[in-house]
Amino acid sequence: MQSKFKSVGLIGKPNSVIAKTFSLLYDHLCQQNFEVRVENQSKKFIASQSVKTVAISEMGKVCDLAITVGGDGTLLSAGRHLAPYNVPVIGVNLGRLGFLVDISPDEVLSRLDDILQGNFVTEERILLRAELVRNNRVIHEQTAVNEVVIHRWITPSMIEIITHIDDAFLNTQRSDGLIISTPTGSTAYALSGGGPILHPALGAIVLVPITPHTLTNRPIVVKDSSQVEIAFSQNTQINAQVSCDDISIPDVLTSDRIRIKKDSSLMRILHPTDYDFFEILRAKLNWSS
Amino acid sequence: MQSKFKSVGLIGKPNSVIAKTFSLLYDHLCQQNFEVRVENQSKKFIASQSVKTVAISEMGKVCDLAITVGGDGTLLSAGRHLAPYNVPVIGVNLGRLGFLVDISPDEVLSRLDDILQGNFVTEERILLRAELVRNNRVIHEQTAVNEVVIHRWITPSMIEIITHIDDAFLNTQRSDGLIISTPTGSTAYALSGGGPILHPALGAIVLVPITPHTLTNRPIVVKDSSQVEIAFSQNTQINAQVSCDDISIPDVLTSDRIRIKKDSSLMRILHPTDYDFFEILRAKLNWSS
Amino acid sequence: MQSKFKSVGLIGKPNSVIAKTFSLLYDHLCQQNFEVRVENQSKKFIASQSVKTVAISEMGKVCDLAITVGGDGTLLSAGRHLAPYNVPVIGVNLGRLGFLVDISPDEVLSRLDDILQGNFVTEERILLRAELVRNNRVIHEQTAVNEVVIHRWITPSMIEIITHIDDAFLNTQRSDGLIISTPTGSTAYALSGGGPILHPALGAIVLVPITPHTLTNRPIVVKDSSQVEIAFSQNTQINAQVSCDDISIPDVLTSDRIRIKKDSSLMRILHPTDYDFFEILRAKLNWSS
Amino acid sequence: MQSKFKSVGLIGKPNSVIAKTFSLLYDHLCQQNFEVRVENQSKKFIASQSVKTVAISEMGKVCDLAITVGGDGTLLSAGRHLAPYNVPVIGVNLGRLGFLVDISPDEVLSRLDDILQGNFVTEERILLRAELVRNNRVIHEQTAVNEVVIHRWITPSMIEIITHIDDAFLNTQRSDGLIISTPTGSTAYALSGGGPILHPALGAIVLVPITPHTLTNRPIVVKDSSQVEIAFSQNTQINAQVSCDDISIPDVLTSDRIRIKKDSSLMRILHPTDYDFFEILRAKLNWSS
Repeated sequence: MQSKFKSVGLIGKPNSVIAKTFSLLYDHLCQQNFEVRVENQSKKFIASQSVKTVAISEMGKVCDLAITVGGDGTLLSAGRHLAPYNVPVIGVNLGRLGFLVDISPDEVLSRLDDILQGNFVTEERILLRAELVRNNRVIHEQTAVNEVVIHRWITPSMIEIITHIDDAFLNTQRSDGLIISTPTGSTAYALSGGGPILHPALGAIVLVPITPHTLTNRPIVVKDSSQVEIAFSQNTQINAQVSCDDISIPDVLTSDRIRIKKDSSLMRILHPTDYDFFEILRAKLNWSS
Repeated sequence: MQSKFKSVGLIGKPNSVIAKTFSLLYDHLCQQNFEVRVENQSKKFIASQSVKTVAISEMGKVCDLAITVGGDGTLLSAGRHLAPYNVPVIGVNLGRLGFLVDISPDEVLSRLDDILQGNFVTEERILLRAELVRNNRVIHEQTAVNEVVIHRWITPSMIEIITHIDDAFLNTQRSDGLIISTPTGSTAYALSGGGPILHPALGAIVLVPITPHTLTNRPIVVKDSSQVEIAFSQNTQINAQVSCDDISIPDVLTSDRIRIKKDSSLMRILHPTDYDFFEILRAKLNWSS
Repeated sequence: MQSKFKSVGLIGKPNSVIAKTFSLLYDHLCQQNFEVRVENQSKKFIASQSVKTVAISEMGKVCDLAITVGGDGTLLSAGRHLAPYNVPVIGVNLGRLGFLVDISPDEVLSRLDDILQGNFVTEERILLRAELVRNNRVIHEQTAVNEVVIHRWITPSMIEIITHIDDAFLNTQRSDGLIISTPTGSTAYALSGGGPILHPALGAIVLVPITPHTLTNRPIVVKDSSQVEIAFSQNTQINAQVSCDDISIPDVLTSDRIRIKKDSSLMRILHPTDYDFFEILRAKLNWSS
Repeated sequence: MQSKFKSVGLIGKPNSVIAKTFSLLYDHLCQQNFEVRVENQSKKFIASQSVKTVAISEMGKVCDLAITVGGDGTLLSAGRHLAPYNVPVIGVNLGRLGFLVDISPDEVLSRLDDILQGNFVTEERILLRAELVRNNRVIHEQTAVNEVVIHRWITPSMIEIITHIDDAFLNTQRSDGLIISTPTGSTAYALSGGGPILHPALGAIVLVPITPHTLTNRPIVVKDSSQVEIAFSQNTQINAQVSCDDISIPDVLTSDRIRIKKDSSLMRILHPTDYDFFEILRAKLNWSS
């Protein structure tokens, strides 16, 4: 059977632990006559001199499928770059299951062939878009698959964050920060902050305060069509950092506002047909013990 | 201006503290020529001999609007009865703001007249329906506006609950119980159990474990189109109780299953046009202090 | 070398899974000329007709050491009975480490011989004593190694608990209940309730509210010389249950008071010399994963 | 009656809101012939030219009592400086009760006279001492009344902290940081981090992880005679900050270790005789609502 995919991008975590799986995958895909492009940084894992490389930022233009080898972070990063091009991603893990990367190295070829021949389920995950607004102009934009985090920064005391949701005032909170998370991110940093797990299919985002001063300040879940706007109280001299997944937005001023809403693109992940979110949840959270 | 409502049902909390507001309301509505029906138990608050009464279970058939005077519990109970008839409810509080009852006694007449003349926002809240399944037959049904609770009962040790969502196994948990809550209930018992706040407009339900044995067992939020099914582990001799809001389902056996899904009817609440959910949240959770 | 112990009591969890370890232990101790007494219920695990049995309540009078085979619960129960006699306890587990039972079946004989010959560390754990006070008279008493729990009982709504510590009013709380826990119990039910871990050597008890209505109601840790007194608010019709570990105090009235303080006796546990509380903590709470 | 105090130090929060109370206090004490010394920064609140000033670091040498006017932070800072001299502190608040400052401006003179004449209760609070150890040498020391905090710093990802207690390995945790708190600090930042309340008289310190990666990582309470030692995992490039109350220890390297133990000095606070810790707790945590 002919695969619906023609050009496959390969992205590896920059860690030699993946080298063997990565080159195995590369050879396997070449043998099957896929046009394979290797992300620039991952070229080192391939012995062949004829390997074609591509920058991660360009991969969406030339590939119609991407495969990441690494952990959730590797897939997250690929997802942010590929979502605008609507290119789906498959996640091969390092031997340890991730929330997003569910193909083990020891069964990677058979699992992958199955997917390439059309046997997969597609999962769509929303991204958030954070806009840094200064003097009513958007001066910086960044997407996030997991979460946007507002955090105190080089400042010993709590920061005071003013939150509006769809232009309605939610609250002013003193805390170490605030996590605005997608369902995807709800099992990452937001969970450490005490947030709930959101099912990936739920059209929602969750706001999780980080060590809030007011003990009644709880995570709040709103529709993913909501626009969250963050401003800082000007009472005190503070510095704040804004990050999208692990990318920092540079030089945020406390007079800036941060506007967060669902991005227009979606990250598409292809899973084997027996994909089971709850099973991953049980495994990762040790629920059986 | 003519009101779109003709027949108004009046329901009071069975507590003399509401007597004055209740009779004031009654007189006011009669003077405006509404057909007023007083819920049976609340008749004691009305001096007039000519008062027409109605059982709460029948009110939906004869009224096109209901007004409750009391706390959230009074409105909850009315909502459960009136939702199947699509009759909207207005909540007058006792002098202390509730999450659902947002008209204060001291401004009740002006606020109410405004609503009766068509100046209101309608809020729709989902209900849950719990079915008790024995030998594959539904032997009992009950709706809940806030939550369905599975709880250990006359048993000193934890119970073991097996949860499926849309026929997929979620987990087996040892705990004191499990709360399955609507967005409306998310600010009630589920919040005490450590659950997140769900915005009322979010199409979601949240499962909140009660004192779970496994520390990684966290609240999980799923789409409100999900069907939650609860069974009990047969390993140990336990008793469990199932309640919907504060109504107990009688005689649950641990061989029974409890199926919970969104009810086909919605509770409709009419609010003054300046209704602000976040403002109520701030007031009730003391966020300003 | 002569053991300092002469008469050893053997107590097994009433579960056939321990049978082999139990009879192995019995034979081993007999061979070494210890006077061995088997707890009544555990007699079934011993084939020999000449076995000497003793009720758990009498064991403290005739033994100078007790060995439990089972889980933490088995040792807890033994500890409650033996503490008044100052008889130390050794805990053999079922093959799965417990917080208190730290000798594995597969190394039980060598580990035990070591202890019997004097190579052990002694750990002392406090017990709580709960007194049920009616009309200023103590009408019931019960000790607990883990915790005393006040819990709502056959009642759908929260109970209102009034707490005094050393005669000073602490608070009135609406909740499902209150856990008053020793350091030993802090890794049991109190932990599920959101309480902190107390190091076993800390002279403290912790009060952990169960699903409290007020979100600012937090666990509070006080000196173990404190007397905690619980009363019930008489506003509402409720029923409450009081239990000590898993033993219920019968027929508590809401006009009763429950007085909880450190018992005059201590539970003594003998551990191998390489005993490490933190190691058990890491293992049981899966901190390495 | 003659006061046992002769020389009183006055310390104000550097905020004009206290000016009136501060000068009132100053005049009152001068009139009663106390030798009054005003902390350098607070001189601006006193009109008199003859005011005697003293640096906070020298106050303990020349005063036998100190009075702070401000919030908990002002008293905390004074306490750190005065504890080594065993000089007691009295806390006047700004009109809003603090956990430590319990004399209101509107009753300050009568309350104070009472204390000066010997009618008070003395409360002793422990301090922590943090030592920064580099190449086995202590290169920096700082005391804290509330807490020592290890926190990630100018680094987007979690840090990995290795904790030993009395030379026994506790755990390695990935988190945003770790709070090591006194009972005094247990109602401050540690409480926001999810820690328990420790009664001030309890000889304990609590370790509270900040947004820990492992969900089973819970606050742990140990004896205040324990030595806590913190090291950093060298796996990843991170920066960490160590602060004592709100004082940062400069230039911490991830190869450094931080040793935290109870300081040899105690902070002594004088309270009116009707001082009630639980009452303050109820007021500050809004338990009555």
